[in-house]
Amino acid sequence: MPNPTAAMLVIGDEILSGRTRDANMHFLAGQLTEKGVDLQEVRVVSDDAHAIIAALNALRSAFDHVFTSGGIGPTHDDITADCIAQAFGTPIDIREDARQLLADHYASTGRELNVARLRMARIPDGATLIDNPVSIAPGFTLKNVHVMAGVPSVFQAMVASVLPTLTGGAPLISSTVRIDRGEGDIAGPLSELAERFPELSIGSYPFQQDGRYGSNVVLRGTDQTVLSTASNALRALFPNG
Amino acid sequence: MPNPTAAMLVIGDEILSGRTRDANMHFLAGQLTEKGVDLQEVRVVSDDAHAIIAALNALRSAFDHVFTSGGIGPTHDDITADCIAQAFGTPIDIREDARQLLADHYASTGRELNVARLRMARIPDGATLIDNPVSIAPGFTLKNVHVMAGVPSVFQAMVASVLPTLTGGAPLISSTVRIDRGEGDIAGPLSELAERFPELSIGSYPFQQDGRYGSNVVLRGTDQTVLSTASNALRALFPNG
Repeated sequence: MPNPTAAMLVIGDEILSGRTRDANMHFLAGQLTEKGVDLQEVRVVSDDAHAIIAALNALRSAFDHVFTSGGIGPTHDDITADCIAQAFGTPIDIREDARQLLADHYASTGRELNVARLRMARIPDGATLIDNPVSIAPGFTLKNVHVMAGVPSVFQAMVASVLPTLTGGAPLISSTVRIDRGEGDIAGPLSELAERFPELSIGSYPFQQDGRYGSNVVLRGTDQTVLSTASNALRALFPNG
Repeated sequence: MPNPTAAMLVIGDEILSGRTRDANMHFLAGQLTEKGVDLQEVRVVSDDAHAIIAALNALRSAFDHVFTSGGIGPTHDDITADCIAQAFGTPIDIREDARQLLADHYASTGRELNVARLRMARIPDGATLIDNPVSIAPGFTLKNVHVMAGVPSVFQAMVASVLPTLTGGAPLISSTVRIDRGEGDIAGPLSELAERFPELSIGSYPFQQDGRYGSNVVLRGTDQTVLSTASNALRALFPNG
């Protein structure tokens, strides 16, 4: 059975303006690879309802899972939850269990659960809450869409809450072979190797070190035996490294 | 006149598997902001012809410019140039001026211009070459699509070659106001500020420091006077920081 597929939707002007360097994509990619879920596309859009809804609808119909990051805080530009509801044609309102989580949290920290913070309890009908041990305000899963915060520590905690609930596939494993030749010298043999092992994905990542060219060839697949056979075949092609 | 719009298409399995953390998106975002070009969407897709062509066609029809990163090297998984040609319905072949650049370069470095390396001279008909001072193999611009390498040093050099050829708009300028309150405390006033200054984009980025909550509020726009007025109004709302 093929692995489940996934896409990620990163929401936030701050990424597109270059103010903030996104960290969540790289984190999620690694986690999904370990879990055996194939991340096949990522989109980054601004805090714009039309852009968020269009991207969400395209991704949720094309992939088994969609993970979103950003736009679920208390400020006016946090519109993700409402956009998700709109994309699904589902009502959204303040939900009692989410409100209670926030009420307890703010009572214990001496801060006010005001109108702005109450927005973080707005959850589309039919969603399941995603636990947020860092700052309490929950994410949520609605059908195949997992809605999480953009702050990396919170995003990571929410991913840890969601991933165990998903059925993964065979974890993608990889093997890296370093060859001290330029990419152009190894491209021909590599292409033949890729044809011989169609079940593997074989990529080459060139580098320069001390003025010499080299490539890290990464073989990826789900079967350790096939991976070892192919890695050995590659090493045999370049016996001197 | 509104600023020109742009999208970026990042191509590469290594980003989606979590092996490599993309650096080009953040770099390009900052450069485009300085140039007055609005980066409105980024997509990351794998080394898959169908995915590349579909994303390219969606983005080039929706935005003034599309910048691509990755997949123009000599190996079998470098299929970007052929995908671009296919997306435009344009023939592609080894082009003499690109071949000559590579021939001179490899002659001078004592390496062989073999079949694999010659692939880097494949340029769609009607494209303009993008200078690559780092490793010579050129990128290219075809209509509103700028095709560049994924290796960050090469990508950055190509961006430096392309950007001066584009007509930019008013550079986006920003002002950051630090407020030592939680986001939930400032969300209400911030929302009113955003309504009062519709020409600005106002975002809030929460942080925790020494156990206390704070927010960096970033105001972005193209008019320095408006930006200063709004920043001062914001500071006046929170006189104690």
